[in-house]
Parts: sequence; C-alpha cells; structure tokens
Amino acid sequence: MLSFLLLLFLLPSSSNALDFCVGELTLPETPAGYPCKPPAKLTVDDFIFTGFEKAGNTSNIISAAVSPAFTAQFPGVNGLGISAARLDLAPNGVIPLHTHPAASELLVVTQGAILAGFISSANDVYYKTLKKGDLMVFPQGLLHFQINARGINSVAIVSFSSPSPGLQITTLALFAGSLPSPIIEKVTFLDDAQVKKLKAVLGGTG
Amino acid sequence: MLSFLLLLFLLPSSSNALDFCVGELTLPETPAGYPCKPPAKLTVDDFIFTGFEKAGNTSNIISAAVSPAFTAQFPGVNGLGISAARLDLAPNGVIPLHTHPAASELLVVTQGAILAGFISSANDVYYKTLKKGDLMVFPQGLLHFQINARGINSVAIVSFSSPSPGLQITTLALFAGSLPSPIIEKVTFLDDAQVKKLKAVLGGTG
Amino acid sequence: MLSFLLLLFLLPSSSNALDFCVGELTLPETPAGYPCKPPAKLTVDDFIFTGFEKAGNTSNIISAAVSPAFTAQFPGVNGLGISAARLDLAPNGVIPLHTHPAASELLVVTQGAILAGFISSANDVYYKTLKKGDLMVFPQGLLHFQINARGINSVAIVSFSSPSPGLQITTLALFAGSLPSPIIEKVTFLDDAQVKKLKAVLGGTG
Amino acid sequence: MLSFLLLLFLLPSSSNALDFCVGELTLPETPAGYPCKPPAKLTVDDFIFTGFEKAGNTSNIISAAVSPAFTAQFPGVNGLGISAARLDLAPNGVIPLHTHPAASELLVVTQGAILAGFISSANDVYYKTLKKGDLMVFPQGLLHFQINARGINSVAIVSFSSPSPGLQITTLALFAGSLPSPIIEKVTFLDDAQVKKLKAVLGGTG
Amino acid sequence: MLSFLLLLFLLPSSSNALDFCVGELTLPETPAGYPCKPPAKLTVDDFIFTGFEKAGNTSNIISAAVSPAFTAQFPGVNGLGISAARLDLAPNGVIPLHTHPAASELLVVTQGAILAGFISSANDVYYKTLKKGDLMVFPQGLLHFQINARGINSVAIVSFSSPSPGLQITTLALFAGSLPSPIIEKVTFLDDAQVKKLKAVLGGTG
Amino acid sequence: MLSFLLLLFLLPSSSNALDFCVGELTLPETPAGYPCKPPAKLTVDDFIFTGFEKAGNTSNIISAAVSPAFTAQFPGVNGLGISAARLDLAPNGVIPLHTHPAASELLVVTQGAILAGFISSANDVYYKTLKKGDLMVFPQGLLHFQINARGINSVAIVSFSSPSPGLQITTLALFAGSLPSPIIEKVTFLDDAQVKKLKAVLGGTG
Repeated sequence: MLSFLLLLFLLPSSSNALDFCVGELTLPETPAGYPCKPPAKLTVDDFIFTGFEKAGNTSNIISAAVSPAFTAQFPGVNGLGISAARLDLAPNGVIPLHTHPAASELLVVTQGAILAGFISSANDVYYKTLKKGDLMVFPQGLLHFQINARGINSVAIVSFSSPSPGLQITTLALFAGSLPSPIIEKVTFLDDAQVKKLKAVLGGTG
Repeated sequence: MLSFLLLLFLLPSSSNALDFCVGELTLPETPAGYPCKPPAKLTVDDFIFTGFEKAGNTSNIISAAVSPAFTAQFPGVNGLGISAARLDLAPNGVIPLHTHPAASELLVVTQGAILAGFISSANDVYYKTLKKGDLMVFPQGLLHFQINARGINSVAIVSFSSPSPGLQITTLALFAGSLPSPIIEKVTFLDDAQVKKLKAVLGGTG
Repeated sequence: MLSFLLLLFLLPSSSNALDFCVGELTLPETPAGYPCKPPAKLTVDDFIFTGFEKAGNTSNIISAAVSPAFTAQFPGVNGLGISAARLDLAPNGVIPLHTHPAASELLVVTQGAILAGFISSANDVYYKTLKKGDLMVFPQGLLHFQINARGINSVAIVSFSSPSPGLQITTLALFAGSLPSPIIEKVTFLDDAQVKKLKAVLGGTG
Repeated sequence: MLSFLLLLFLLPSSSNALDFCVGELTLPETPAGYPCKPPAKLTVDDFIFTGFEKAGNTSNIISAAVSPAFTAQFPGVNGLGISAARLDLAPNGVIPLHTHPAASELLVVTQGAILAGFISSANDVYYKTLKKGDLMVFPQGLLHFQINARGINSVAIVSFSSPSPGLQITTLALFAGSLPSPIIEKVTFLDDAQVKKLKAVLGGTG
Repeated sequence: MLSFLLLLFLLPSSSNALDFCVGELTLPETPAGYPCKPPAKLTVDDFIFTGFEKAGNTSNIISAAVSPAFTAQFPGVNGLGISAARLDLAPNGVIPLHTHPAASELLVVTQGAILAGFISSANDVYYKTLKKGDLMVFPQGLLHFQINARGINSVAIVSFSSPSPGLQITTLALFAGSLPSPIIEKVTFLDDAQVKKLKAVLGGTG
Repeated sequence: MLSFLLLLFLLPSSSNALDFCVGELTLPETPAGYPCKPPAKLTVDDFIFTGFEKAGNTSNIISAAVSPAFTAQFPGVNGLGISAARLDLAPNGVIPLHTHPAASELLVVTQGAILAGFISSANDVYYKTLKKGDLMVFPQGLLHFQINARGINSVAIVSFSSPSPGLQITTLALFAGSLPSPIIEKVTFLDDAQVKKLKAVLGGTG
C-alpha cells in the first residue's frame, strides 16, 4: 500500500524519463538517431552485445579485422553518445588510414603491440608503438591508422564518442568506388599508373 | 496586397522555421524527443499546462507530492530544453533522496520552508534551510533531497534543464523493484535485515 | 581505515568530476560560460540565491519589475543550463514585448492573473489569460509579452533553458539606443513622428 | 576479390555511419530535424540546390527578396547545422528588422553595397555600410536589418548556423497577424493610430 | 617551393583548426573543459596514457579497483567527449552501486566474468552475468554496479561519453560524508542503527 | 527619467546576456572557443571581415586559393557556430581532396563553374558540375574536392557549421609531413616510388 501511494504520487507516469532509447532499426533514422523501441518490450539483452568474444577473421588482404558495436549492430547504444569496436591485427596486419567523421576514438591495447598514429590539420604526425595496456586518443575527424608492431596477434578495444562514428577508409574511398581516375589524379596529385593499379586491385570503376 | 507581396517574397513557406515542436506522444520517441504535432493543429492550449493550480495529494507515506509538467504531461515543452514540477511538502513531508539523470534542477520556495541539499561526487554535502523566495540549484545527476523544515505546508516550484529530466528515487530503485537482496547488500553494504525490511514495506521482490 | 582504502582506490582524485562550475565572474567569460571557482572554496551559499524573497520595485513606467537570477546575479547556475527570474506586475503592469535570444522560457503564475502570449515565425499569435498555478512555455527566440490581467498585484516565476538567456526588449532596442531615426523608420515602417516621440520618452539618440 | 574481403571485414554494414540525413519532408519533423531518406535512394542532386541562380523578385513593397535554402527548400542540409539564403535589394530595398530564433547569420556582399546592423541585449547598435566582399556576422536571436546603401541592385549570400534558422520579421509579427491592437499598444508603447495604420497596410486583424 | 606556396595559400594559419585541446590543468576549468595547452608544445605522449598496463590494487574492502583515465589523469581527452577506466575485480570484488552524472558507460569484459546491472527511473532492473568479450551499456546518470561473478580475477575496460564522467558512489555519498544521520534516515527510510553502523565503518560524520 | 527607471528595473546588469563572444585570441583557447573580449571594448568592426574583397593569389601549384574567415582571422564568429571562406580557382585550379573535421560545408558558386564532389563512408561518390548560383552541401568530416570546370576564373563562397572547421588536405597530410614512407605505404597501399616522388615535391620527410 505504501509502495502504491509512493508510485502514485511520485511517479505518475513511467514515461516521464527518457533514460535510454534502444534503437528501432526498422523505422527511419533521424539526425539524432533511431526512434526508440517501446520500453515495455526491452530486456537486459537489449543493453548487451556479445560480438567481441572471439577474434575477427584476419584472413584478408590487410590481415586485420574490425568488429563494430555501433548502433547498427548494437541498438542499445542509440542516443547514448558512445560505441565500441574490437580490432584484430594478425602479424603484418594493418587498419589502413581512415577517419571517423562523427567521433573521437579511444584505443586500448589488450594484446600484443600496435603502432598507432594520427595526423593533425597542420600536417603534424603523432605516432608511437603502444604496448598492452596503453591508451591513445584520436581526435574527431583526423586521419589515423593502426599497424601490428611486434609480429604477434594483437588486439585492441576502441571506443567512440558517438553511437554512429562512421568510418571512411581513405584508400577505399579513392580506389574502391566510381570516382573517375582523372578526377582522383587531379585532387590527389597521384600518378595515373598508381591510380589505375589500385583501382584494379580494389575494384574501383570510372 | 502589400501584405500578400511581403508574405510571398519574404516567407515562401511557413515551414521554414522549427519555432517549436509540440510532442505527438502517440508516435515513437527519438533521442531528441517526440515527433512534432502539425503546426496547423496547434492552439494556445498546447503551450499551457494547468496542473499546478492546486496542491498535490500528500496523504501518503512521505507526506509529499511531486506534480510534474514534463513532456509526458505537457507536450508543449518537447524539444525546448525545459520543464517544471510542483512540490508539496506537508508537515513532516520529504522528497526522498533522488537524482535526475538528464537535467539540472532549480528550486524556488513559494510557501513555507524547506531543508534542501545535494551531495557531490567528492561526497561533500551542501544543504541549508530555504525560506520563501529562496532558490537553490541542484547540478545534473547528483543525489539531492527536500524536507519540510518548519512543520507547515510548504511548496516549491522546480524547473529542469530538460523536458524529460528523469527521476530516480534511490530508495525505490533499491527496494521497490526486483533486484535480489544479496545483490543489493553486496553493492550497498546494507544489512540483510535492513534490505528485507524495506523491501517488505516498499513492495520489492527478489 | 576502510574509508581510507575506499577513497584511495575508488576516488584517486576528487577533480575527476566536473559536477558543477560555479562561475568566477572576475575571469573572462567563454562561449560556454565563466571559468569555475575552485571547488575547495565553495560553500552551500554558492548554490543559493535569495533575491526572490520580496517584490521588485514596480514604481516605474511599466508598473512591473524583472528580478533575474542569471549567471551574473547567481554564479551557481553557470554551466548548468538553467536560470530563473521573478516577475512582478502591479495593476496595469506590463513586461513589454521581448525575446530571449538564447533560451526558451517557462512561466508559472504564483499570484494574480497574467495575460501572456507569443508570436511565431509564421506571425501566428498564441495568447491567453493565465491564472494562479498555470504554466506557459515561450519557445526560444520568439517575441512574447506578459500583462497584468486582473488589476491586482500579480507575480510569476519564470525559468530559462540557459544560465544566460539574454533579454532584448523590442521597444528599448529601437528607441532607447542610438540607431538613427531614418534607419528605424526604414526597417520598421513606423512613422517619423512615432519614432521621435518614443525616442524622446525613452532617451534614444540618433 | 581483395576488395570483397576488405568490404566484408572492414565494412560489415554500410549503415554503420550516419554521414548525412537528407530530410524526408513527408514524415513528421522531430526536434533534431526530419527523418532521413533511405541512403540507397539518394543521388548527387539531393545535395545540390539551384535556387540562387537568378535574382529574387523585388517588385514588392520592400523592393527586396529573400530566397531561402533552408531544410524546407533544400532537404540535403537537414541535420547538418547549416543553411543559406540569397538576398536581393533593389534600389531603396530593405530587409526589415528581424531575428532568426535558432541561428547566427553570416552575410557576404556579392554585389553593390548594403547598410547592415544589429542591436544587442544592452541596446547597443552595431551598423555599417558593407561593400562587395565584406562579411558581417549577426549573433543568434538578435534584431538585425539590411538596407540597400548605394541605390544600385545589391546582392548578398547569407548562411546560418542551423538548417532551420527561422525568420521573425518584427513589423509583420506585430501588424500582419491577429494580436489585438490594445495589446500591441500596451506591449510596445506605440500609438493607437500608428498601430491601426500599419495593420491596415499589412493586413493585420484584431 | 611548391609546398611553401601550398602552405602559404591554403593554410594561412595553423591555428585555423581546433583539432584537439589537450587540457592545461593548471588553468581554471570551464564548463566545456580546461583551456588548451599550446599546440607547439605537444608531443605524441600528450595523446597516450599508460595507466592500464597493470592491475589496480584490490587489497581493500571492496576487493576491487577503478583506474581512471579521465581528464584529470589523461589531459589528452579534454574536450573530446570520451574517456576510459580499467576495472579490477578480485574474487568477491564489487564496484558498489554508483552513477556517472555526466556520461553513459560502455563496459567490455576482458578477463573473467562480471555480474553487471543497472536500474531505470521506473525501478526496472536489468542485470546479467557477462563473460569475456561481452559488452554492456549503462545509460547516463542511472544507478549501476559490477560484481565479480566467477571467483577469479576479472577485468573490464569501460569507456565514457564524456572526458569527465563523474563518479558518485551511493554508499559513500551517504555514509562517508557529513550529512547528519537524521537527515539520511529521513530521505532514505534507513534505520538509525544501519546508518550509524555504516558511518562508523566508512568514516562519516554528522 | 522614464528610460532610467526602465533600465534600472528591467536590465539590472548589461552582463546578463552573452549575446556574442568576440574571441580574445591572446588568451588560451578552450574546447568551446576563445574567451570573450570585454563587450565595452567592441565596435562594429569586430563583427565585420573584409578579406573577401579581392581574389586570392592563385599563382601556385594548385592554381587556387582559400581565403578563410575562421576564428583565427575573424574573431567575431567565435562561439557563434559559423564561419566562411572564399575559394578562387584559376583555369586548371583545384582545391585538393580534403576534410573539415569539425564542420559541414555549404558552397555557393558566385562566378564561373566548379566540379565539386564528396565521398561517403560507403565509398559512394556524389559529384557534379556546379554553375553560378548553385549550392552544394558537404557533410561533416567526409572527403571532398572542388575543380575548375570551365577554364575560366571561378569563385565560390563557402560557409561552415563551426567557427573553427579545420582543414585536412589528404595529400599534404601524407606527403608534406614527417610520417615515414614505409608507414605511409603500409596504411595506403601506395607504391614506394609514388610516395617518395610526392614527398620530394611537397617537402615531406621521414
């Protein structure tokens, strides 16, 4: 009875608070994220993501894998200003030069060693070999990269200041799409032969 | 005719501006609030809330009442970064220890006297008896409380820096829900007898 | 001893958290507000403002008074996204047409009755007589006003979604400053005689 | 094949990133803007607006025109924090006193000369004649105006810090709507004759 | 020479961009964080934190340790919207019930198993045992906890959506500070004996 | 006298409002921008920038020039969420591939014709030849470029959703700085000869 009165007068409606907004991915996204799933339908599993339990498949050209837990994979982070990914770098592995248009990144090495760096707007380069337990922050929107530094399998947990940080890999942006080669050459100063070679490898057209 | 031309050339579409966004509560909420009701359907009453005209019912265990005008009760504040509530504290009344996860709070005593306080992350306590006309600000997310200070009916108007500030009452969070008693004891250091006593009173399970 | 260990390992530095940022008004302001006073120097009185205890002086041309508790008067709200003011409207009192460039406003009538309204970008007008206990929200940046509605002393508590909401009174902006009359007439379509009459009353030049 | 592997492991889902959110204007707006059109349906034309290619029609009472490229006309800016408009000022042209409730404005004169100014909350006036190539910034929510300064057709490109800046023209807000004349006179100190004269010209009622 | 011209015309000043703002902790903090160290004085080590390389000391009453990399310890995250901490939970270890007033939290278990949970404003409880590789998100400002779940040393990397998330441990807030016992009892419904027992253990006064 | 009373009671302090915050560039920047110059020292010229009156010098390797009006050149935009630049593209001119880490960009062609485009995170390319009067929006943080399209001098006014948008030119980031060639090759897949050729031209080291 006490609890009844307390709830009646102190919490007239449980919808007072937008504590969280688990994304309903089937509805159209908005600039602030996806509409919320009804709170009544949520369980603890909406707030849990189990994709980091094993290594990503690094049997590819970069000997590396990125396993994201962004809104698209983990709707529980929708609207909460944070997300994460697991990075796997086999020996010789590399996460190619890229940016996250919408987030800063914080990397923690959990296994092995990683050479990581970023480049500022002033073209200054900040890079260093990180060992297990080291953190490095990559400011929003700046070019950065990670390379296996010791020839052993290396792993990092990275987190982002947005549930949808975006990921633009410079080499794929240039050579895996349909931007005509003359334009690429004009805006990058790269040689025609170089552009065509990488387009052939990466499937680019135009 | 003049007005026609003015409107034609200066205001090609009245939908240029998102002056306000009265919440359409029947549509799914987003991280930024509810979708907007069509402006053409709005009247002045969409911007007015009349729930503060009389005292809340304080015939309950806390001898107090909170009457919120959050988005759920007052859709006119949707998207506008502000909301309010009326607090009623009968003699011996108390608004138990609580936080607003999404807003800072500003309290104005309009009748009687209230002992109010908050606790910082450094465990420092700031509390004082406020009399009619006094304001106190409670920073976002910090534990705070209000207690009737003079044995007479006391009233406060509180406003929040969010249309959906949230309200988490510590004692209800612990003892009115289903968190198992051993977990509660583990994470609070409270005694088993204390936990079970309050669960019995407040309707908690587990 | 226990507490010592707890504090040592769980709270390595009390400066971890920016719970609040009471404004140090003697230092230069930034776009996000004033720099913070050192937490060690704060007392509960930094979070309390006592200026609403009595009526503002309404012995003036508008028979009204605004008593603000913005950052400048109440540095405790600095950085917290909220502030407040007390409005006093004697019989015939009026808060002239104005905007708050940086905040939405939420008004609560605590005594008497007030005719309040605002005008949207589409030139739609929303106004109504509010009685004691009624709330009205005025969306950010829109023209609005308050008028004593019953011929008795009326009071309202207003809160804002910013610690520095700003206040631009249209008539003072036009006629109490130094904008030359021909420019005023050009940009408002007001008659020269009207402009000069109000400049004379309100002390404007140019 | 390489590219296949790269895409498979580095970009598990193209929906990871909310690079942009072209507005779907047929869906209800939210406080953060319109829901997004599906990325698969977008073409380059969704990011292009062609409305600034010719002068607006200045054959009207103000000898001026505003051609907006806000979200309503240019859905590509939805959610991106920016928009623009073209201003045309024929000889004697004027953009009357107005505010943008939701944005700061940056003006660039591209032809002719423009006398532009704004008024601060302290009733200080900042105005000057701008010639071709000059920029002026008008802080959010403050009253400002633009007047043809040289008697030749003048043009400016203005940009805004919001995709939906809003536009409230003071004279239209007062005299083109339905706010009763006695209220207008009370809140502005304008004479009854002046109010009724402008209401007659601008089509106001009440 | 080419580069000279490029830099001269494309980058007239390296101070155009605020790529990052490494905190100068000796200057007064602002609501948006600390003032920036001069870019010319920065090295890669300003963006690296090495505090997670070894386990925190869990020889304490909670058999647990939190090693933060917030702005106070890692000035490189100042202004970047992200920070992190390492959690160590020895057998029987617990991170007591707490909130982060200014951030959502994302936890990744990197060793062992952890029982983690949070409580919503509606007093709903979401908890589960997380094993190595599992993630859980804790929405901003809500009460949550972590407990060693398997009796073996367990470790988690947690990240936050703010460089200064704050940390308010409910039990310390109540019993390690100076809030008088009668007030604590009034606002929590706890028994006097319970309050005094925990104050004695945790060093509280009042 | 009237005005005196009005000012006394309605505007107790002109420092109530933070209408604007003209940057004091000699003080340390903060994450929200520079501290403000004292309002009393401001004149209209603090809000005006005259740098766009003539063409930038395009006698350089890219036959192009960017003339920014960011906070560093135009302190009046500090804190106001907007800035601008003038682009000059001589025949064969090109603004090389670049990003703005902190802002979306809106381009208006004011003379000539410009081939402009951007690349999304999904490696989709959006480009088109813009003629005089056309606008194009480039979403925050994405790679984009502008090329003279007609062989005649072309000009654009671009605006940004931040007073400090940043500017990272991909080719300069890679080849004008000190990132060692082996790392560049590893993270971009470019050939060693290509990297060394461009470093020689652009002055890069390492």
